[in-house]
Amino acid sequence: MAKKIVFVGAGNMATRLALALADKGCYIAQVFSRTIQSAQALATQLGHSTGYTDTIAHIVTDADLYIFSLSDNALPDVVAHMPANDALWVHTAGSMPMDIFAHKCKRYGVLYPMQTVSKERELDWNDVPIFVEASNEDDTNLLIALSQLISQNVSRCNSQQRQTLHLAAVFACNFTNHMYAIAERLLKEQNITFDAMKFLIRETEHKAENLSPIKGQTGPAVRNDINVMNKHIALLGDTPEAQLYQLISNHIQQYHSQQ
Amino acid sequence: MAKKIVFVGAGNMATRLALALADKGCYIAQVFSRTIQSAQALATQLGHSTGYTDTIAHIVTDADLYIFSLSDNALPDVVAHMPANDALWVHTAGSMPMDIFAHKCKRYGVLYPMQTVSKERELDWNDVPIFVEASNEDDTNLLIALSQLISQNVSRCNSQQRQTLHLAAVFACNFTNHMYAIAERLLKEQNITFDAMKFLIRETEHKAENLSPIKGQTGPAVRNDINVMNKHIALLGDTPEAQLYQLISNHIQQYHSQQ
Repeated sequence: MAKKIVFVGAGNMATRLALALADKGCYIAQVFSRTIQSAQALATQLGHSTGYTDTIAHIVTDADLYIFSLSDNALPDVVAHMPANDALWVHTAGSMPMDIFAHKCKRYGVLYPMQTVSKERELDWNDVPIFVEASNEDDTNLLIALSQLISQNVSRCNSQQRQTLHLAAVFACNFTNHMYAIAERLLKEQNITFDAMKFLIRETEHKAENLSPIKGQTGPAVRNDINVMNKHIALLGDTPEAQLYQLISNHIQQYHSQQ
Repeated sequence: MAKKIVFVGAGNMATRLALALADKGCYIAQVFSRTIQSAQALATQLGHSTGYTDTIAHIVTDADLYIFSLSDNALPDVVAHMPANDALWVHTAGSMPMDIFAHKCKRYGVLYPMQTVSKERELDWNDVPIFVEASNEDDTNLLIALSQLISQNVSRCNSQQRQTLHLAAVFACNFTNHMYAIAERLLKEQNITFDAMKFLIRETEHKAENLSPIKGQTGPAVRNDINVMNKHIALLGDTPEAQLYQLISNHIQQYHSQQ
């Protein structure tokens, strides 16, 4: 098990993960962030034995594990400037290949928690799917054991599969949430709260868990109810929502004509 | 309470509703469908005292309540040919105004169950939101009492609000399910089952129930992570899914620049 961990990054994901690991007895030695306030904020939450820095050159070199939790835009540059060491380096990104580390260190990998984190809502790590891979079998096992400290839902997965998982998650989570947001705004204009959708979105999600989503499709597009679709598009008027309505409806019809 | 009910229509919705009402002691006198097999199938499920017909002129005229549960395409024509009577006529459609009946009868209304029904899945009526309206107060109260026999979630709502509820439901339910379906197909290409998304879609739905969906938005579009978005679009290649990805991402960014 990794005795001494450094977090490179102090954003939402780094914060949640560092606190969860510390809670299970891992020692977080240091936090790096390009913003000293962020580094300090996370280090403070982790306790007095955790150091912090905003200078890459000051990152300690004697840790066992370095967890890079940065945006995809920032990651390559930070990795390029990291002080060399013999430890295991991993990142937490869905769409970054593992070999981004290959030219910088011998032992590297990925620990990808697939979840949606908002500051206003606590995350129950126990069910969060965590997908790991590493450049050698021992380190893969180390990452599995580490992940299993916080989640019962840990799997191996290669970089290609992980990229697909991330893309699928954008559709199933981020885009789904945006569909909810559009509904929320439409209802607000009629003084109806989004709460009116509660049973419906719950049933939609339960159906998807129990039936195949493709088989469970309902609504005007899949039954080609042109009257209803035309009414809805007229109701939306000349808005980007009308364009979305049309495109998604066409796409549903195309999917189902292929079944 | 309506003592004697006729169902005009024998599709999925008519079947579920007729069985639920019969189960609570309502007497379904007759079922009409333009397809005699469908009319007979539903009547048979309802028991030997329920008649059936495929001829509009043979619809009995002595019932207390006529429930029209037909596609929006079929409804106006069937209403136009209905034998006149003094009973209450209601339809179950989300986007049809109540006054579609106005020129044909004196007492009319709407009983709109907002749900997603698939043949493969039982529906628990208890929580289904039912929205009612009628041309007079007594009949509104009658429809509320009738709906409350099967659901604890009954509200009044006018035709304009109902149309918005239906449109919002298309986004929050039908389009959401299609986002799941796209994820399902993407994962299948990498031999991953949709089950991998279970925790994520559950958390996305729970978040929407507890936070405002607009506030709970996460993902590459809302944080303007161009690297990730470009990778995803490249991964989708020259497909309609890539076009959808781009349009929905743009729309998310537009929504959040207005916040």
